Order: sequence, then C-alpha cells, then structure tokens
Amino acid sequence: MTDLTAPAFSTRHIGPSADEQQRMLEAVGFESVSDLVAVAVPEAIRAKDQLKLPPAASETEVIAELRELAGRNRVLTSMIGLGYHDTITPAVIRRNLLENPGWYTAYTPYQPEISQGRLEALLNFQTVVSDLTGLDVAGASLLDEGTAAAEAMTLARRAGKSKSDVFVVDADALPQTKAVLATRAEPLGIELVYSDLDGELPECFGVLVQYPGASGRVRDFRALAERAHGAGALVVAAADLLALTLIAAPGALGADIAIGSSQRFGVPFGFGGPHAAYMSVREGLQRQMPGRLVGVSVDADGAPAYRLALQTREQHIRREKATSNICTAQVLLAVIAGMYAVYHGPDGLRRIARRTHAHAVTLAEVLRAGRVEVAHGEFFDTVTARVPGRAARVVAEAAARGVNLWQVDADHVSVSCDEKTELAHLEQVAAAFGVSAELSGLAGDDALPASLAREDDYLTHPVFHSHRSETAMLRYLRKLQDKDIALDRSMIPLGSCTMKLNATTEMEPITWPEFAAVHPYAPAEQTEGYLELIGTLESWLAEVTGYDAVSIQPNAGSQGEFAGLLAIRAYHQAAGDTAREVCLIPSSAHGTNAASAVMAGMRVVVVACDDEGNIDLADLDAKIAKHRDALAAIMVTYPSTHGVYEETITEICAKVHEAGGQVYVDGANLNALVGLAKPGEFGADVSHLNLHKTFCIPHGGGGPGVGPVAVRAHLAAYLPGHALRPGSPVGAVSAAPYGSAGILPISWAYIRMMGGEGLKAATEQAILSANYLARRLAPHFPVLYTGRGGLVAHECIIDLRQITKETGVTVDDVAKRLIDYGFHAPTMSFPVAGTLMIEPTESEDLAELDRFADAMIAIRGEIAKVASGAYDKDDNPLRNAPHTAGAATSDTWAHPYTRAEAAYPVSSLRDGKYWVPVRRIDQAYGDRNLVCACPPLEAYED
Amino acid sequence: MTDLTAPAFSTRHIGPSADEQQRMLEAVGFESVSDLVAVAVPEAIRAKDQLKLPPAASETEVIAELRELAGRNRVLTSMIGLGYHDTITPAVIRRNLLENPGWYTAYTPYQPEISQGRLEALLNFQTVVSDLTGLDVAGASLLDEGTAAAEAMTLARRAGKSKSDVFVVDADALPQTKAVLATRAEPLGIELVYSDLDGELPECFGVLVQYPGASGRVRDFRALAERAHGAGALVVAAADLLALTLIAAPGALGADIAIGSSQRFGVPFGFGGPHAAYMSVREGLQRQMPGRLVGVSVDADGAPAYRLALQTREQHIRREKATSNICTAQVLLAVIAGMYAVYHGPDGLRRIARRTHAHAVTLAEVLRAGRVEVAHGEFFDTVTARVPGRAARVVAEAAARGVNLWQVDADHVSVSCDEKTELAHLEQVAAAFGVSAELSGLAGDDALPASLAREDDYLTHPVFHSHRSETAMLRYLRKLQDKDIALDRSMIPLGSCTMKLNATTEMEPITWPEFAAVHPYAPAEQTEGYLELIGTLESWLAEVTGYDAVSIQPNAGSQGEFAGLLAIRAYHQAAGDTAREVCLIPSSAHGTNAASAVMAGMRVVVVACDDEGNIDLADLDAKIAKHRDALAAIMVTYPSTHGVYEETITEICAKVHEAGGQVYVDGANLNALVGLAKPGEFGADVSHLNLHKTFCIPHGGGGPGVGPVAVRAHLAAYLPGHALRPGSPVGAVSAAPYGSAGILPISWAYIRMMGGEGLKAATEQAILSANYLARRLAPHFPVLYTGRGGLVAHECIIDLRQITKETGVTVDDVAKRLIDYGFHAPTMSFPVAGTLMIEPTESEDLAELDRFADAMIAIRGEIAKVASGAYDKDDNPLRNAPHTAGAATSDTWAHPYTRAEAAYPVSSLRDGKYWVPVRRIDQAYGDRNLVCACPPLEAYED
Repeated sequence: MTDLTAPAFSTRHIGPSADEQQRMLEAVGFESVSDLVAVAVPEAIRAKDQLKLPPAASETEVIAELRELAGRNRVLTSMIGLGYHDTITPAVIRRNLLENPGWYTAYTPYQPEISQGRLEALLNFQTVVSDLTGLDVAGASLLDEGTAAAEAMTLARRAGKSKSDVFVVDADALPQTKAVLATRAEPLGIELVYSDLDGELPECFGVLVQYPGASGRVRDFRALAERAHGAGALVVAAADLLALTLIAAPGALGADIAIGSSQRFGVPFGFGGPHAAYMSVREGLQRQMPGRLVGVSVDADGAPAYRLALQTREQHIRREKATSNICTAQVLLAVIAGMYAVYHGPDGLRRIARRTHAHAVTLAEVLRAGRVEVAHGEFFDTVTARVPGRAARVVAEAAARGVNLWQVDADHVSVSCDEKTELAHLEQVAAAFGVSAELSGLAGDDALPASLAREDDYLTHPVFHSHRSETAMLRYLRKLQDKDIALDRSMIPLGSCTMKLNATTEMEPITWPEFAAVHPYAPAEQTEGYLELIGTLESWLAEVTGYDAVSIQPNAGSQGEFAGLLAIRAYHQAAGDTAREVCLIPSSAHGTNAASAVMAGMRVVVVACDDEGNIDLADLDAKIAKHRDALAAIMVTYPSTHGVYEETITEICAKVHEAGGQVYVDGANLNALVGLAKPGEFGADVSHLNLHKTFCIPHGGGGPGVGPVAVRAHLAAYLPGHALRPGSPVGAVSAAPYGSAGILPISWAYIRMMGGEGLKAATEQAILSANYLARRLAPHFPVLYTGRGGLVAHECIIDLRQITKETGVTVDDVAKRLIDYGFHAPTMSFPVAGTLMIEPTESEDLAELDRFADAMIAIRGEIAKVASGAYDKDDNPLRNAPHTAGAATSDTWAHPYTRAEAAYPVSSLRDGKYWVPVRRIDQAYGDRNLVCACPPLEAYED
Repeated sequence: MTDLTAPAFSTRHIGPSADEQQRMLEAVGFESVSDLVAVAVPEAIRAKDQLKLPPAASETEVIAELRELAGRNRVLTSMIGLGYHDTITPAVIRRNLLENPGWYTAYTPYQPEISQGRLEALLNFQTVVSDLTGLDVAGASLLDEGTAAAEAMTLARRAGKSKSDVFVVDADALPQTKAVLATRAEPLGIELVYSDLDGELPECFGVLVQYPGASGRVRDFRALAERAHGAGALVVAAADLLALTLIAAPGALGADIAIGSSQRFGVPFGFGGPHAAYMSVREGLQRQMPGRLVGVSVDADGAPAYRLALQTREQHIRREKATSNICTAQVLLAVIAGMYAVYHGPDGLRRIARRTHAHAVTLAEVLRAGRVEVAHGEFFDTVTARVPGRAARVVAEAAARGVNLWQVDADHVSVSCDEKTELAHLEQVAAAFGVSAELSGLAGDDALPASLAREDDYLTHPVFHSHRSETAMLRYLRKLQDKDIALDRSMIPLGSCTMKLNATTEMEPITWPEFAAVHPYAPAEQTEGYLELIGTLESWLAEVTGYDAVSIQPNAGSQGEFAGLLAIRAYHQAAGDTAREVCLIPSSAHGTNAASAVMAGMRVVVVACDDEGNIDLADLDAKIAKHRDALAAIMVTYPSTHGVYEETITEICAKVHEAGGQVYVDGANLNALVGLAKPGEFGADVSHLNLHKTFCIPHGGGGPGVGPVAVRAHLAAYLPGHALRPGSPVGAVSAAPYGSAGILPISWAYIRMMGGEGLKAATEQAILSANYLARRLAPHFPVLYTGRGGLVAHECIIDLRQITKETGVTVDDVAKRLIDYGFHAPTMSFPVAGTLMIEPTESEDLAELDRFADAMIAIRGEIAKVASGAYDKDDNPLRNAPHTAGAATSDTWAHPYTRAEAAYPVSSLRDGKYWVPVRRIDQAYGDRNLVCACPPLEAYED
C-alpha cells in the first residue's frame, strides 16, 4: 500500500526533491548522501546517536500546538512601562511589512544597489532619531536600549577627554539598562557610580541621564551637562522618543549622545523584543559610533543612492581593534518605527504624545484627589504613587481588574500610560488604589516642565507628510519593497549567512496577539505559554548542540559570543584563575570574535593559519606554550570560516584543555553540523548559535537576530542573569530577560516540524548543494579550500584573484554583474580578499542552483571576453554593472557591447527581470560627504 | 485644548487631507463640500436625516469587536460534507496570495497586458479543471456549484437538440444545487424531474448527475450518458475535483459539461463562501459557456500572452440576447485552488485523495463491524449510515465530541472525510454511533468501483511539477504578482467599478480561523457570531439604502439583481398580476440588467435616452402606455451609467408606480449616494448593492463579489430563501445560505469604522474628486456628460471620438499608453463607445489624482504631436503602447521617437517604473486559435 501520510514539512523546507538530490549526487560522484557525508565530515566529530527530539509534526499540528501555548499567555492591559510601552502597529504596516517576506527575508544591505528600499526606510528611521533627539547623526539601530547605553558608555570613554574610569549613571535609569551596563563595565575596568544627579558630579568620563526617568520624573539636565562638559565628561541621554515630541531635545540640553528604544513607535512588545534601539551623536562623534549608519552617496550616473556609510568602522574590518561587536542591527524593527513616523507625521506623533500625557495627568489628579501620594509633579507618561506597605496589594488588585502595573518596591507602584490607554483603564487603576472615579474626560493641565517645552520643528521632510492615507502608505511600502532583492525573488547565496527558507508557518504565530502583546515584565502566571516554549526551545537547542545548558537571552550572535566568553571568564575567576586572560583566535576568524574577546576583558593572541585556511598546529602549540598560564580560551569557527571541516578540531580542543583553557566554538556555521556532529560532544565548552541563520529566523534586512549561548555543565552557572534576577555571577547581556522572545516561536516551529531526521536531512542537503555548486563552478573558477575527498562543507569559496590579475575584473565587478542576472552576490572577500564565498543552503531547489551556476558561468564567459579583448578592458558589462533600466533605455548608448548583453545576458530574464534602481554606488563619495538623514527632494531632480 | 482623539479611520480611508480637499474645492469653484453637493445632487432625492449608524469606531476597537464576534463562533471538526470539505490552505499561499493586496486588490483582467500574472494563475486553474474533468475547455470560474449547475442547465437547453422542457436531476444531487436549480428553472419554464437515474430516462433536454452523489455513492454513468445522448439530451456531471484524481473523468464517461466546486483545493469554508465553482465543456460548446474564459494569444511582438477569450459572448456585449448574467467570477479563489494544485502536483493531490478515501473506508469498516448499516458499498469520501430513529442523537453526540456530522433525515447520518481527517476523528465518530474503536491504522481496502479506476495522466504540464518547495512556491507567487497592476501600485480609475481602499483592518479578520473554518451548515448554536454580524450588516445596509429588508445571500451583483427581479415577479404573481412581465431598461443600461430580466422570465423593452444619456421621458411615457398592463418593472441605474444625477428620477419612479410597475434601482453607483440619498426613500422598491464596490470588499482580480438585495417592506417576503429553509416563495439564488459569508466582516468593519458621518464624507469626497479630475481634464478632452452646474457625480466620461476621427488615436491607444505611465486604464467605451469613464473614488489622495491628470494631459500632448505630424501616424508611442523593457532595450530601435519618450514620458517614472510584461495583445488571434489551458513551454521560446 502506498504511503498516505502527508509529505513532511522537511520536503517543503528542503529545496531539491528526492529525484533532484539523486542527480546532484551523481554530479558530485556519490551514490547516497550518507556516502557523501561519510567522506566530507570527519569521523572523529560525528555524533554517535540520532537527535533525541520529538518526531516531526505537520504544519497544521504545529499551528495547533502553538495556539495552545499562545492560549496560555494571558494578555492584560500593560501599564508597566519601564522602557516598554504598548503601541498600535498600524495594520497596513503589520501586513505589508512585518508579515511580508519581501521585507523580512532580506539580508543586511551590504550590496546597496539591491537594497535601496530598506536603506531609504532606515534613513527615515535615522531622520526620526536625529530630529527628535536634536543630534546630528543617528545610526541605523542597535540591539536594545540596555546595549545601546553600554555602547554609549564605551563611546564616551573613547571619545572623552577624561582619564577617569568612572561612569555616572542616573539612579532613575531603567533597571535593565543598569544591569547591562554593569555586565559591560566590569570586564573593561569601568566603575559605575549611581547618582540622583541632583548634587555634585563625581569625577567621571561620562554620565547617563534617563530622560524621562524610570519613575516618570522629567528633569531639565542643562546644568548637569554643563558641569559634565566642564569636567571633560560626555553626557549620554537615554531618552524616550515619544516624550521628545513634547519636551526639549537632548541635543538642545547638551547631550553628546542619545540612546533609547523605538519600540513604542509601532513595534509590539513580543515579551521583550525584538525592538530597535537607537543612538545619535553630535557632530564629531559619528566616526566612533558603533553599529551601522546609512548614508547618501551617488551612483555611477551621479544620481543619489543610499548605502552603509563609514564601513571602515565596522568590527569585521577593525578586528581586534574593534570597540564593539555589534554586527546585527534591528533593521526590520527600525523600519517599522520609521514607517510609524511616516504614517503619523509630526502632528500625529505629537497628538499621540499629548494624549498619553493627558492620561497620565488625569491619573495623577484622580489619585491625588483620592489622597494617594504622587511622587513627582513633573512627568510625561509615568506616575509613581507612594502606598506604604501596600504596593503588592495594589498591583494584584489591578491585575485582577485586567491591568498590569509595576511594583517598584514595597511602598511604591508606578503606572505608565501609552497610546492605547483609555479612561476606562484609569478608572480600573484608580480602583486598584482604592480610589473610586468616574471619568468623563481628560484633565486639561500639563505636568511637563515649562522650561522644557519643545518649540523647534521636526520631521519636516516631505516623507513625513506624504503618506497619510492608507492607500498612500501601502504604495510607499510596495515601492520600496520592489527596489530590493529578498528571498522572495531569488537565491541569496551568502557564505556564512545561511539565507534559508523562513517558512510562513514559522512566521505566522509571531503576530498573534498572545505572543505579540505581552510585556517582558508581565507576571510569570500570565506567561506560562511563553515560558514553556522558551524552556522547550532551550532544551532542544542543547540536544542539537550537545551542550548541557542554553540561554536564549542574547539577542544577536555577537551578544551570545560575549556571554559565552563572560562565562569562561567567570569560570576561571571562580577557580581563582584570575590571570587567564588570553584568548587565542585564528587569523581566519570573523572580526566579531576578537571584538567580543576584548569586550570580555581578554587579550587577543592571533594563531596563524596554513595555506588551506586551517589552524597551524605548530603555531598553536607555540602560542599555547607562550601563554600557558594566561590562557583563557580559544575561539574557533567550525566548520572553519573557509568552509572546511578541519580534521584537527578534536586535537585542537585537547591541546587547549590540556593547557587549562576553554574552547569556544563559534556557531555561525552550525548549519553544516546539525544532526551530524555536536560541538558539545567533540570537545567544545561553549558556543553561541545563530537562530537567524541555522534556525530560520529571517534576517529582516539586517536584524533581528537571536544568538543563544550554549555551554557544558561546568559553565552552566555562568549563563546570563537578568535585571529582575540579580545575583547571577554574570549579569544581563540583553535588556529583556528572554531577549528577543517574540520571535522564538519561529525556531521552535522549525525544529518541531523538522524533527531530528529532518534537521539532519537539511544539513546533508546543505552540504550536497555546496558541493554540487563547487563541482559545477570548478571548471570555470578555482575553488579555494577543500577538505577530504576534495569536498567542501556547506559553502564554497571561489577564487578570483588570478582572474583579477589577468583581466582587471574584480570580485566587485562579478558581484555587481550578478545583479544584472537577478541575483544577490555571494559573500565578498571574506574570509579571503578577492574571493566569493557561496552558501546555497538546503532550501534552494536544483533549478535555482543551476540558474545561479549558469549565471556564474555566463559571467566567466564575459570575463573571458575581457581577457581576449573581445570586450573593452574598462567599458564592458562587468565593469559597468549593474545596469539600470534607465541606463539600458537611454537614448545614447555609447558602450561597445549591446543593450541586450547588458540587460538580458540570459533569456530567462525576459520572464520577469529584477531592475536594479541605481547604478554602482560610489562608496568613497558618500563617506567624504556624509549625509545620514533624508536628503532634500532637490537632490533627486534630474 | 487641542483635540487629542485619534484621527478617525475615515481620514486614512479618504485620500485627500483637509488641506488637499480645500485646494480641490478651489479648483472646482466651491467653498465647501456641502456647497458642491448642494449643486451636484438634486434636492428632490436628498436624504432628510443623517444615517442612523453607531458612531465610528477605531481600527483597534473594531478588531476587538470582531474578535468578540469571532469568539462566538465555535469551530468544530466538520465532517458534514455536502459540497463543502475542510482543507489545508498552504500557509505560503494564504500569506502571499489571500492576504496579499498585490493579489486581492487587483481588478478583473480586462486590460490583459497588466494582468498577465493572474491570467497565468487562472490558466493554471482552467488546466486543473480541464485535465481532471477530462473535458476540452474550462472557464475561469463561476460563482458557486449551485449557480454553475443552473448555468449548465440553461447551456444544455440552448445547445442540445431536444425540444423538451424537462431537465432531469439526480435525486442524489446536493440540496443547495437542487434549490438553486429550482429557482432558476421556474421563470424559464423548465421542469425539473428528480430521478435516481437507475431506471428509464424521461424525455428531457439534459440530465445532471452528481458524481459522487451527496450520499457518497459513486456511480458509473456511462450507460446513462449514452441513453441521454441517444435522446438528444446533454449530460451534466456535478463532480468533485478531489475524487476525480482517483476515478474516471466525467468526460471519459460521456459528460458534455462538468461543473462543481474547487473549494476543497485549499479554500477555507468561510461559512459558505466565497469559493470558486468551475465549468468545463467538450469541444463545440465553448462558445456557449457562461462566464469568463482565459485564453492564450500573442502580443505585438508575437510573444505568447494571455487574455480573456471570446469576450463577445459576454453579457455586457450581448445585452438582452444574453443567456447568463454572470459578470463576476471568483478569481481570487480560483487562483488559490489553482495554486493548491501547483503546490501539490498530481502526486500530491492523488495522495490527499487516497488518504481521504482510506479514512472513509476505515470508518465504514468500523461502523459495519459495530453493526451499523452503511448505505453504499462504493463511495469516495462520504459514508451514509442508517440508524433508524436515532440520527439526531448520533449527530448531537458527535457534536459533543467535537465533530459535526450531517443528519440526512430521522434515520440517516452522513459522514464526510477530507484532507484534515485523522484516525482520532473517526474514533469520535464511531463513538457517537455507539461503536467503540481504537484505530491503529487505515484500512487497506478500496471502495471505489473498479470500472471507474482512473488511469490517464493529468496535470502533466511543468507548472504542476516545478514548485514543490515553499521557496519555489513563494517566488512563483511573487513573480506573477509583479507582472500585474493592482491598487498597491497605483490608482485604478475604473468608472462604475469603484476601486477604493480595501483597508487591512477590514481584511485581517477574514483569515482568522473562527471566521474561515466554519462550515455553512454548522448548527446555529455554533455560529452565533456570524449570525449576529450578518444581521447587523443587513440592518446597516437597510439604513444606508433606505430600504426595509436586505438579504446578503446573493454572491455577486448579478445575483442580487436576479433576486430583486424575482422578488418583483413573485410580488406581482402573489397579487394575481401574472401578466406583468415587461421590464423597461434604458438604452444606456449595463448588459447585466437585461440578462437578469430575461433570466427572471421577463421581457425586455428598451427605453431611449437623450443625447445627455438621460432617460427620454417621452419615450418612457410611450413605452409605459404601450405595455401598461404587462409592466412589471423598470430598471434604472442611479446616478446614471453616464455618471450623472438625473433630475427626473423621482418623476420616473412615479410614472412607473402609477402604471403598477415596480422600480429597480441598480446599486452599482451607490458610492455616489451613500449618506446623501437613499434609493428606498426617493422612489425605488428594490436595489442590489455591490459590497465589492461601495463597501470595500476587494475585487480579487475579478471576484469575489457580494451583491445583497435590498427591498421595501412590501417585497420583504420575497427575498431569497435557501436550501435548508424550504418554503420561501422565491428559492435560493446562491448555494450557501448566507452566500459569501466569509468576507462579510470586511463590509461590516468598513461601516463600523466610518460611521454615518464617515460614509457621507467618503461620498462627498468621491464626488469632489471626480469633479476635480473633470476640471483638470476638461481643457484637454471634452467631458461628455454633466448635470447641474456642469458637475458630474462620482465619475466622469471623457470623449475621444473627435480626437480619434482627427488623429486616428483610439481609446485603446490611450488606455495602453497609460500603462507606460504606470496606470490601469479607466473604463473603456462604456457606456459610450469611444470614451473613457474615470472614477477616482474617495481613497486617492491629491498627489495621485494629479499624477493621473498629468499623465492624461501628457498623453494629450502626444496626441497633438500625431495631429501635427510631429509623430508618425502609425509609428508613435501611443499606437505602439505599451512598451516592454525588452522592447525599450532592444538593440534595434527603428521608431521615429526615442526610447526615453517610450519608457519615461514623465520623470517621476524613474523612481520605480512598472514594466509591463507583454506588448499589446492581439485579441482576434487568440479567438481564432483558442487555447485555454497551459501552453507547452516551447511556446515561450525566443
């Protein structure tokens, strides 16, 4: 009898069918996938057992299970505040952006020509931040407010004139900000001093003021800023963007740096994230800013074009000189926040802020009238009430009435109003305080300091005034989306970035209200569904990696890496090994590794690699010998950044362990291991994973990411703690207790639908697909690194250096020419300059792999024409790539090749070509003429 | 104090801001909108009072209210069957098609060049139907299975050789099919004879066989078909598409026509609809088919291109000779069904069918083993059990166990399996029958007649074999979407079609499971939410139109029209006025009017119109005098199809009433009346409305539609009944009791969010926008019809006839040239040949209105160049429009105008141009060489 069971989800996730897989195996020269894997993956690291995971569930079953879990989260009205405020995501933005693969499957805009849509959206975000904070340059988002505060702290230390190691922190700062600052400060030797900021300022290199404070208080910090500047210290304002629509900009009060969250601009709670934090700085500090910065430049035709500015600051370029490991931004969330401002405009934002404020004022009046003491006379949205001894009771009573408040301590309760607050909520809150009130309207008074009234204009750019109808907004979103290449158009074969399918069934639950509308500090009894989901996911990830404990708190791979190193450090310290501070890093490593090590207070020592990209064991021995007593750890990527399963990995682990060091395996390439090998079993002590790579969280155009840290048992006690759970030897690395909890259902669903066998099959297919591409391309391009049997792991590097030398055609030319063929380029010049690293992933079917290979081979033919002189050395389709429709239809065509060669090098493009919106972008021009906010419309005129 | 309330939803729905509105008023020469309306809308028809509707709710409130209503629908596992079967909508299709405005806001593909995506999708659907039914030509969908059966009946009568008036209907046909057939047969003098089809066939012109039957029975009807053909009758098979993957195709058994529903191919229940019905016919009948037919033709370059074939069959062309009034198809649902087949392929469909069948067989075995009598030995998915006297108890017990069954009568229960059925469900069902079963697996036997085993191949086209991974499916959907213009790209200014905003908040609820997953025959106690929503919506529509009763059953305007005329007919008959059969229709009327009148058994008498397009009162008097005793009704469109508020409407109503006739006001143009005037008050007795025009249900690329019928009190008793409520003097016009119930939340939400004032403001803005465009265009094109003060209503007609005469440039040239400017053309040559009718709707903001006006004026400049000889008469941008990217980048450019003039006539196009995928399509070629299924790939080769 035929098998009547529905095909497993894995057959939808994995691109090639069984037939196609067989054809690919033939091309690679194996009979079966297990034969291939037996040769490709060293026996020494192979896992002994099948993954112990529940059997694969169907999409329908998983949706039912997630609905059950969602049903166990109780969504109350949140008036907790503390940096997380309820907000209305405009439905047109939710559907057409947050729920649209055209936006969420896009990659980081490193190829700016095919990223103009999201770069424009990020420029809107930067303009919002820069305008509202009154500072000159804003970045394209950071991970969360806590991290942003920590980055501001280290920026202040680098940029300031003071030699002090003290950083003064507003006692009224958000608890999670304090927690993250503490974690970050300690390894760097920074001393945090908490202060109410009302009195003398101690000697310090910087001071952070929360504006408004966690308690609600709004302070005019002009005088404080003057004092700080006088002492050579920089001023960081942690500011609420909505409040800034009504009160003076931090820049106007003297802040050098502003940071904060843009969550309340339309981004759901998600039990803590992901949300986009922001940072802006005054002129002079921009080249020191962490994270990404979108700027305006020009393309080959001199037309305005967007791209990431000042990339030389980035940690993958600066390596061990890096001062921040922020690789992932929160692009998707920053884009939402920017669009929220576009949709509401300055008047709409101001109205929302006024309404929020009026509710807070009304509440304060009602409470005072009911003889409840209110802590501050001046506040924006948060009212702190003094209720000696009965704070817990008030909070419980409010919860019983459907509203969550915040218990500050035994005697204080704070209540935060937001865009969704209604008079009926205030009545319930009042009742919880024992005050009976029937409200017929809002109070007319104002509780903002008169000295802080905001009087300057902001968001004057037309983009904030032209999309007020839903129709106009919808079309704006569509227009931007159409400028970009995301996974919904074509393969994105980025080595080390694993751009696999983000399945709809994985994505759908994240916008269900039961997951989206939960405040991170909601009481545990309201979040049972989330807590179970998180616990299960952590246990599954431990099983997959062979570790004993996992924390999903880190909201980016970089943060997981940092947390892992902190665990190692704390472990050594607990053992009294305080001298262990050397971190060995192979020369081929990703720059983040070194940056994280520095941030964790370690000293980086580079280990050489051989010509094949493998760690040079002799040099490793030498370095171990030299630093034996100081050895804290080694950080290795496995498979290597060169895409090879190093045979020596177990040996390397043993050598380091023998010397008393710990082994950190970077999980960036885990997609080549899942189901086949477990780092926790083959010798590593700690890894971070990238849920946005291996476990299907979409890249979102450059964030969100999730970077869980996984450790063996001896390190389990040193996983991150969080603000609400003080006492962990290692503090919080992210602001929210569970990091970007709101998107964890994606990875949960993926694992649940794949089961152990499906996960393994995905890995096998990823390896087969990489080897298939390597075989197809090898006759045309040298394939740089291979392991046993001439095989690669899950990605392959093709080497263009000789071609460049002979013909002048560069990797850049090939990458940009691929755009004309409808593709996003592979990873360029990493890990080796002059190469392209291709990772097809398991999700691409054979037709798409062949379409890509055909494009590369056709490009090789074009290169051959350059070599032979059939194409001009400087004026050829490669050098002039990409070609816009405008260029290809221009009335004058002066090139020695034809328009058809430019635009339609292969005939399949005639059935739906992607037209790139700009020609090749001049990177240097934009850095010389830095513009990081929306340019005036005249810039776009013909 | 400033107003802190959030801007009403109406400010998002209505495009122009208050400022923009003021500028438009200035351009039109009025101080306020009420001044404009006072002149434009005749005082005689103005409503006296404000609309009595609940005050406008916010988007957030409406979602909360709809969640509350949704929560009052209980979703049980449905095993009711009867033509509606549960199915899994693949998530990738739900999100990227059903929930994607790029698909759902598209218009009917009358402009094929900008509709190639959905035309390809419809061709897939037609191929599925044609392949599975084994018949030569399939149409692009009909409204529902009942309507399709009725259409097949009349087709058989037209096409067959028999003179009999008898149509034989399988006694085992679906109850709703029988009900709709009865309603349709009676006015046409067709006698329905029910038969078990086992014995002699009476003399008849056609016979309908349900295959499989409602009871589950699968019959080999070969011999029956031979007998019927021998007697000159045609054979209609009402067939289940899923069953056809396993059993012989109707065409192979001798059916001339096949009809049925494609619902179970991935389309949710929606409490009855919308779903796409299908029809296919054998070679020779295709020119008689009702509804739309997609065919393959070629474009100006000879490349294959899709378009609607054989449009001369359509009712708007055939008018009173029309034999069907089917104007709306169910495009969006047909596209889903087609994509379901694309995603699963023939193997997947066959597996789903086998699995469904195996569950039914297993259930039958379990019941028999438990001594429950099973009615048939041969069945596909439905098992009918005989349980003397206890059917009601079994059904109740099953419901208590979470499963809905169907009580056939006091002694029989039927149980229908589907894609979602699991063994656990069968156990619950067995228990409800009092049979205890623990199932470990599916039965291995087969209960299909051996003689009917399907052996031929189907769905062999590559499209059904190339999109098996989710990634591939996602990209295919995106590729097709990108070929089309929908409202997410630009204004679609179609006169009489009202392409307004379909707001996301209106759309979101329809895919919530509590609305989507309810079977139309679920017991009333499980559907309280739906029933309340429907009742409320009907009452709101009555208030808006000034009528006393509304039925939302008709699932298209045409069906509402038919239902309205049936109500008039039944009213006259009840009054003994059986001779009243004349329906007066103005010469300017839409063809559907006449077609509906014929279907309702009326005789059409045309009333002349004057040069202004208004009804010629003298001719009206003459026609009334001549047909006084036979006068049944007059059908008028108001405002007129010419876009004018006729001053004489109240007079016309009075004249007809005086002669004993009833007044039917076609609600197509209700968008010009809502909040300002009520047909039910100014003299009409009945109207149909178009929820997909005035009330925001999206056009879906050519369906779904909803066409409620609204009547004054004296006609209320004659509103449609339905299959489950026999005894209505007028039977069912649609298969499902509440028609397309699943999309009613859209209109409910719209009215709820607009409130009475918002609805009125929308109408006013629609009138202002039409007049604004008329003013801007009048200096360049003659505006054809105007009413008082030189004003139009909500649309304006520009006359190109003189221009065509002078320059040779046709409306077609202008329409196709608009594509180069990024626009969908206005309505062409309706109501007057050689004109364009423009309806901007209230949702377009001033920038978009101006962009359109600028394009039209630029085109007028191009026409002037043709006139002056600056452009060649035959080789100019108008005649050659639209220009594809391929054409504009071709290496040879032989035209006397430039590429830039062709592609970028205005500079704003450089920021995101829509590139049309094909050049102008040769309509005649496609009709001469009719191909209505997916063509072989070779057809696309260069």
